[in-house]
Amino acid sequence: MGRPALLLLLLAFLAPGTSVVPRRVLRTLSSLHLPTSPASHSSVAKKYSVFYFQQKVDHFGFSNMKTFKQRYLLSDKHWDKDGGSILFYTGNEGDIVWFCNNTGFMWDVAEELKAMLVFAEHRYYGESLPFGNNSFQDIKHLNFLTSEQALADFAELIKHLKRTIPGAEDQPVIAIGGSYGGMLAAWFRMKYPHIVVGALAASAPIWQFEDFVPCDSFMKIVTTDFRKSGSNCSVSILRSWDAINRLASTGSGLQWLAQALHLCSPLTFEDIPNLKEWIMETWVNLAMVNYPYASNFLQPLPAWPLKVVCQYLINPSVPDSQMIQNIFQALNVYYNYSGQAKCLNISETATSNLGSQGWSYQACTEMVMPFCTNGIDDMFEPHQWNPKKYSDECFKQWGVRPRPSWIITMYGGKNIKSHSNIIFSNGDLDPWSGGGVTKDITDTLVAVTIKDGAHHLDLRANNALDPTSVLLARSLEVEHMRRWIKDFHDNVKRQP
Amino acid sequence: MGRPALLLLLLAFLAPGTSVVPRRVLRTLSSLHLPTSPASHSSVAKKYSVFYFQQKVDHFGFSNMKTFKQRYLLSDKHWDKDGGSILFYTGNEGDIVWFCNNTGFMWDVAEELKAMLVFAEHRYYGESLPFGNNSFQDIKHLNFLTSEQALADFAELIKHLKRTIPGAEDQPVIAIGGSYGGMLAAWFRMKYPHIVVGALAASAPIWQFEDFVPCDSFMKIVTTDFRKSGSNCSVSILRSWDAINRLASTGSGLQWLAQALHLCSPLTFEDIPNLKEWIMETWVNLAMVNYPYASNFLQPLPAWPLKVVCQYLINPSVPDSQMIQNIFQALNVYYNYSGQAKCLNISETATSNLGSQGWSYQACTEMVMPFCTNGIDDMFEPHQWNPKKYSDECFKQWGVRPRPSWIITMYGGKNIKSHSNIIFSNGDLDPWSGGGVTKDITDTLVAVTIKDGAHHLDLRANNALDPTSVLLARSLEVEHMRRWIKDFHDNVKRQP
Repeated sequence: MGRPALLLLLLAFLAPGTSVVPRRVLRTLSSLHLPTSPASHSSVAKKYSVFYFQQKVDHFGFSNMKTFKQRYLLSDKHWDKDGGSILFYTGNEGDIVWFCNNTGFMWDVAEELKAMLVFAEHRYYGESLPFGNNSFQDIKHLNFLTSEQALADFAELIKHLKRTIPGAEDQPVIAIGGSYGGMLAAWFRMKYPHIVVGALAASAPIWQFEDFVPCDSFMKIVTTDFRKSGSNCSVSILRSWDAINRLASTGSGLQWLAQALHLCSPLTFEDIPNLKEWIMETWVNLAMVNYPYASNFLQPLPAWPLKVVCQYLINPSVPDSQMIQNIFQALNVYYNYSGQAKCLNISETATSNLGSQGWSYQACTEMVMPFCTNGIDDMFEPHQWNPKKYSDECFKQWGVRPRPSWIITMYGGKNIKSHSNIIFSNGDLDPWSGGGVTKDITDTLVAVTIKDGAHHLDLRANNALDPTSVLLARSLEVEHMRRWIKDFHDNVKRQP
Repeated sequence: MGRPALLLLLLAFLAPGTSVVPRRVLRTLSSLHLPTSPASHSSVAKKYSVFYFQQKVDHFGFSNMKTFKQRYLLSDKHWDKDGGSILFYTGNEGDIVWFCNNTGFMWDVAEELKAMLVFAEHRYYGESLPFGNNSFQDIKHLNFLTSEQALADFAELIKHLKRTIPGAEDQPVIAIGGSYGGMLAAWFRMKYPHIVVGALAASAPIWQFEDFVPCDSFMKIVTTDFRKSGSNCSVSILRSWDAINRLASTGSGLQWLAQALHLCSPLTFEDIPNLKEWIMETWVNLAMVNYPYASNFLQPLPAWPLKVVCQYLINPSVPDSQMIQNIFQALNVYYNYSGQAKCLNISETATSNLGSQGWSYQACTEMVMPFCTNGIDDMFEPHQWNPKKYSDECFKQWGVRPRPSWIITMYGGKNIKSHSNIIFSNGDLDPWSGGGVTKDITDTLVAVTIKDGAHHLDLRANNALDPTSVLLARSLEVEHMRRWIKDFHDNVKRQP
């Protein structure tokens, strides 16, 4: 898919007086927070069938009669119509096969919950493109990329499954998702409680909007993760930005920088913001996937990767050249743990399984998450949150203006206590936990906190190195789901 | 606005082999079930201010940046910020001033509930036309006429009021509506429980869809109302259709018919279906507004108008000519109680305060309510429910195809028990009660039945001739609302 839009945003970032967090990072924050356990790590084989369901392009109007094919994956190996269930993954901003292969938790609990597994792809991602290659052409084609349309797709798909699969009609459906998918799972239960009996919303930052959380909370958590992972680690990173700035101020310094960081292309002065964003993005990614065992995200990573990274950043008081060499070693953990990379490419941090165009548009319409840094409470250069500039950039890039308050109007913001049967799980290491629900709201809107957990660790497959906290979290989650399933079947039996 | 579309539907009805209930009647069933107490009957003066709020034409997409002015009326005479409330009328298919003047209940309880009253006009009705005179031009312009968009309008309007009226922020909002407006009130609470603490859904046939109720239930209730209102009344009407058919079979018969019924225009054979629909529609209207006191709907009516009508229909075994003369006397109660009408016009039954074009489109998209008659359990000629033909007619008229199951996918159909704080009130005389919620679903989804009550009698102003049942209903409704208001304020106080 590429990311042509980013260049444009980059220019905006370079303009005099701009001091917003670059959209490039925002997009990545949003699109990289995904389950990443590779299929090979799971003890459970993932065998599924691929299907396509004809969806209306526009559920909310009648003049557009167009349809498109939504992809979904289905596994019924452990499904038992007698007391069983349907676990429904509410696909987020990427290829559904990738999510399916990286949500080991569902595969691990399928047998216990006698569950059919369904993984539904989100429109405008993977193969589920409403207008094929033209889907991102202009706002006319992008107009149907909203969370509301995606939830309606899920609702129609579940109705279709219940209509067409014998025995599915009388089965409780539970929505499960992580990150944006977790937000969708929670919202799905809120808006369609007649279709799903409950939701597991893992690492779902449903409050990372408007002024519900301070805009610096995300980056503060990233910083804390680094601070805790090695002596002087965050201080070193904080000081590295000035080192880069100083080196970038001369032609020879730029040349040296590119060489020291083993970049694939030479650097110009204009590339420096891009370089810094790329490094920033890398630290953020590392904080999100700071898992207790070796995992394979974009690149293979060791267990507790932040600790490994921070081994290179123990001395903040070194000359600029040494600082950059240390930073390179640290970056190299993320980009070259396997030792295969010949050079580092500053235009790449995310897997192509993610739909960067789609998320960029969503971030410019409904999903406006304010971020900022101040360089004091965090290890980054100061960037203010500037809604006006953000909106202008969105208009330049997509021709749309964000409506930041719409998501609150639609889904209730902090006032959600009248809903029920939603589990909000959050790892305390996860930067996104700042925007998540980390305290029980009611008896049936419960928060599960995972000590030493990074981004939705609970949705990953079981692993021998899992901390007790995540084992406990998963067993709590299963306990809630078992109760929802039992309540559903008890209710069915009670009816005449 | 006229009703040009009806001619087209009429032709469809005339085509060989068609035996659906004519759309003309369906529209009227849907658009006539409205509060009708004239302002002059209310003991409470209705003084309000008129405002306009800029709404997005499309809440669910970002490519269309157009806005329009939604009209709303506001009265804060009795509003008390200390422990008060906001009663919000979810406007339905007509002019909001008319609804405001005909919902005496809200005016009657305003003081007791220290309530601000707000009456919000439904988009595409009254003055709230998204594209002015072009709003009904084609499906491109009509595309934004849906219940979802209307609910989003209400949500945005309430947020606007809370933002701009000092003291409104900390006030509980209760949705109130009758008929389609009652459906909207209930759905509003279901979909936006963070915005309204509860809903009074009066005479809201939320189950008059798909196969939730038998399609003949509506007309059976109409028939029962007539049967109970006078000896042989329904039998006479049942026999009248054949009398009309026999007279219409000759030229002189047609001429006599037009004369006997005091019609404003002569009749041709082709007009007969239209004539019968008009009569049918009149009986339906009478059943809906069969109130215990004199009221002024389209025309002034006596107390218990069905009883007056049925006085003319006590003998079913009279010659055709006598039968028609009796039918005329009965119709004349509805159309000429004041004695002012010079002739009867078979193309008019509804007030121009209703938006017949808008509702016709809604009935062809989301609001597909199956109706049928069999001539055995009801007093009408047999008409089957034919979804295919219905869809074809909609396509011919508007260029859209209905999606009858969408409303169930969206609002849950019969599976709504996870919601809370909705009162469903129904009068047992009301034909729409067949599609309403007439039994408690949970402790907080309660049904209120009004013995001897016609269409949302409870929303009408207090009247000395009100039966005890409606007094009891209103006091129950107020009791629930007081509790919702108290709970809200208690919760606010409990917070730090």
